[in-house]
Amino acid sequence: MVLKDARPFGPATGLSCRECGTVYELGPIFACSECFGPLEVAYDFGEVRRQDIESGPTNIWRYRALLPVPADVASKPNLQPGWTKLVKADNLAAELGLRSLHVKDDSGNPTHSFKDRVVSIAVEAARTFGFHTLSCSSTGNLAGAVGAAAARAGLDSCVFIPANLEEAKITMAAVYGGRLVGIDGTYDEVNRFCSELIGDELGEKWGFVNVNLRPYYAEGSKTLAYEIAEQLGWRLPDQIVIPIASGSQLTKIDKGFRELIKLGLVEDKPYRVFGAQAEGCSPVSAAFKAGQDVVRPVKPDTIAKSLAIGNPADGPYVLDIARRTGGAVEDVDDREIVEAIRLLARTEGVFAETAGGVTVGVLHKLVRNGVLDPEAETVVLNTGDGLKTLDAVAAEARPTAVIRPSLEAFRTAFAN
Amino acid sequence: MVLKDARPFGPATGLSCRECGTVYELGPIFACSECFGPLEVAYDFGEVRRQDIESGPTNIWRYRALLPVPADVASKPNLQPGWTKLVKADNLAAELGLRSLHVKDDSGNPTHSFKDRVVSIAVEAARTFGFHTLSCSSTGNLAGAVGAAAARAGLDSCVFIPANLEEAKITMAAVYGGRLVGIDGTYDEVNRFCSELIGDELGEKWGFVNVNLRPYYAEGSKTLAYEIAEQLGWRLPDQIVIPIASGSQLTKIDKGFRELIKLGLVEDKPYRVFGAQAEGCSPVSAAFKAGQDVVRPVKPDTIAKSLAIGNPADGPYVLDIARRTGGAVEDVDDREIVEAIRLLARTEGVFAETAGGVTVGVLHKLVRNGVLDPEAETVVLNTGDGLKTLDAVAAEARPTAVIRPSLEAFRTAFAN
Ligand SMILES: [Zn+2]
Ligand SMILES: [Zn+2]
Repeated sequence: MVLKDARPFGPATGLSCRECGTVYELGPIFACSECFGPLEVAYDFGEVRRQDIESGPTNIWRYRALLPVPADVASKPNLQPGWTKLVKADNLAAELGLRSLHVKDDSGNPTHSFKDRVVSIAVEAARTFGFHTLSCSSTGNLAGAVGAAAARAGLDSCVFIPANLEEAKITMAAVYGGRLVGIDGTYDEVNRFCSELIGDELGEKWGFVNVNLRPYYAEGSKTLAYEIAEQLGWRLPDQIVIPIASGSQLTKIDKGFRELIKLGLVEDKPYRVFGAQAEGCSPVSAAFKAGQDVVRPVKPDTIAKSLAIGNPADGPYVLDIARRTGGAVEDVDDREIVEAIRLLARTEGVFAETAGGVTVGVLHKLVRNGVLDPEAETVVLNTGDGLKTLDAVAAEARPTAVIRPSLEAFRTAFAN
Repeated sequence: MVLKDARPFGPATGLSCRECGTVYELGPIFACSECFGPLEVAYDFGEVRRQDIESGPTNIWRYRALLPVPADVASKPNLQPGWTKLVKADNLAAELGLRSLHVKDDSGNPTHSFKDRVVSIAVEAARTFGFHTLSCSSTGNLAGAVGAAAARAGLDSCVFIPANLEEAKITMAAVYGGRLVGIDGTYDEVNRFCSELIGDELGEKWGFVNVNLRPYYAEGSKTLAYEIAEQLGWRLPDQIVIPIASGSQLTKIDKGFRELIKLGLVEDKPYRVFGAQAEGCSPVSAAFKAGQDVVRPVKPDTIAKSLAIGNPADGPYVLDIARRTGGAVEDVDDREIVEAIRLLARTEGVFAETAGGVTVGVLHKLVRNGVLDPEAETVVLNTGDGLKTLDAVAAEARPTAVIRPSLEAFRTAFAN
């Protein structure tokens, strides 16, 4: 493979095995051929200064010196996600009894979930590797993010979904005009089919964002860490609550914080990482509570579909990080998820998807249980948009009253 | 009324009648007592420099020196809308045969429509006037914007909707926890009821964002003009396509451009303003084409519900601006609206609501008819989010194929 650009991956120097440390050249590979461990991007950052970042664009490309992308990435056709709001959540903090709380609200991304961050990095890698088609299997946020990003980038896309997906999700995935293929089968069968496709000549020149482009894709989550630190005034939070699906996002936020410390961009200080799961899919939380290092797969059953990964690949790394930083992994049930979505909407005007209900619900539970320090500076993530999971709150978010159009009727309804 | 702040309305000096010029003190009034004309905020800006704006926050408050808000507005609890993306739409430009096209994508706002801009200004006015409740009648975007903004600001809210609204819209309006009152009646009856309420003691201390706070509220749309100019590199576009509901947004964007010229923040140059309506609610377009100054009310019948105002208050001003600037007002039918939504999604990865289908559809039509100059720098607005009007494209945004999970089935389906 000939890489045209001088440094198409910017500061990245190779891929290194997370388990055995073997180093590979940058390419569309994702597993170590020695030990089958996951590969991760390795870097040589050189000097990175705050003012260079601050003078960059108001999207993730302000951090291009810390990502596997070319220096001119901001001028290429992509969705330019990121630089979402870090909401100072004083109302929610007061209700929960916290001194300082911020919500990192990733519903502000172009397709309204954090997936735009990771997909944008995958798009640049796909371009560099000469892939003409961007692909993934998905039951929701990822489908829209891949469809939209491919459209902007001028790449073909082919997204695989279970054919029995909810109608609204099919519409969202199909509207960007790429190929959308419904598979008669479960989500597991869709995934198995994709694995076959990657090995077949049919899938040649295809970039599966979370398979053969996964090492690049996953790095996109580091930008959440960078933005939180910069938006706090170049400071790490004391405590952070992060949702766990595969666990990748949590491990990359931790990686991002450590990079910032190493580069001298923030003060070196302890921070505690908390993982959040839905009770109906809580294998990492269960392992944490049992004091185990192994994550036992489960069959998901929760309204938090975007977190419903029963066998989270990065689960063991999540356990390491929670334990190393003095954090924890906790879970909440569907009832608590719905209540947390409504709590966040009522106090801060942020309408989160079910994954945001999981993190806010876990935040609430950790405060109640005395696990979180109420005096410490805390950040909680909302990674998606309530408009995509309306069903979760539809039964309860109802009119206060229905009346005839008269002052008399209004007076009667609201006499108190 | 005692105004605590030294200058709670910043550079605003009063309210002046758009028709007869009578000047009033800043207060919760909206119509001239001499001639019943609409009142508009008047300013004394003093000197405003680019670098002061550029060093401000990445939301509409970077323009606080040009808005009726206090100097410390950015530190108050509000949704901080704005600074949405100006998307360089090279793919769409190529399809339409335009040299330079940008999409101003206001789906990136906190509740995913431009309404967050106007409501944010109304919230600050409500606070200053000592109102405890924020209110409006709405069939969609405004309900969510008011509910969310009131929640963040710590104000009560009471939003009135027709009781037979679509379920998804009810959920979106109710989730922020304020009062949501369904009215058994048409949208017109809801509006009539609200007018009664404003005159009654029940409605005392209530800020109806688009009635007694309208002069402040409406100014929020100027920020679209400021952002477009700044994001183009402090330059006005040659041509701009803007949707018309009440017509207020279009008149305020024109006002914003003229202010920038007057303040020396951009070069004085001609620009052409184009208004876009849906054929099923096109009273301004009809008047423009007939060469009339009077806008004859219609009964709306279109899928572009957020533009379905049959008697647009600012219609005559829109006609003035289109004619003065060498622009036009045009309309497209529901079929063209759906096609335009899909065209924008397919080329740029931007999923617009029906109002965005109207503007992109009108853009396309104006190019086809030779009215727009294909060599001139053009901007088109998308003011809302496709997730809120999924029904418009649901019948057509479908899977390309549904297959069994096998390579054989995939090969057969996509053999070409
Ligand atoms: Zn290895
Ligand atoms: Zn007057």
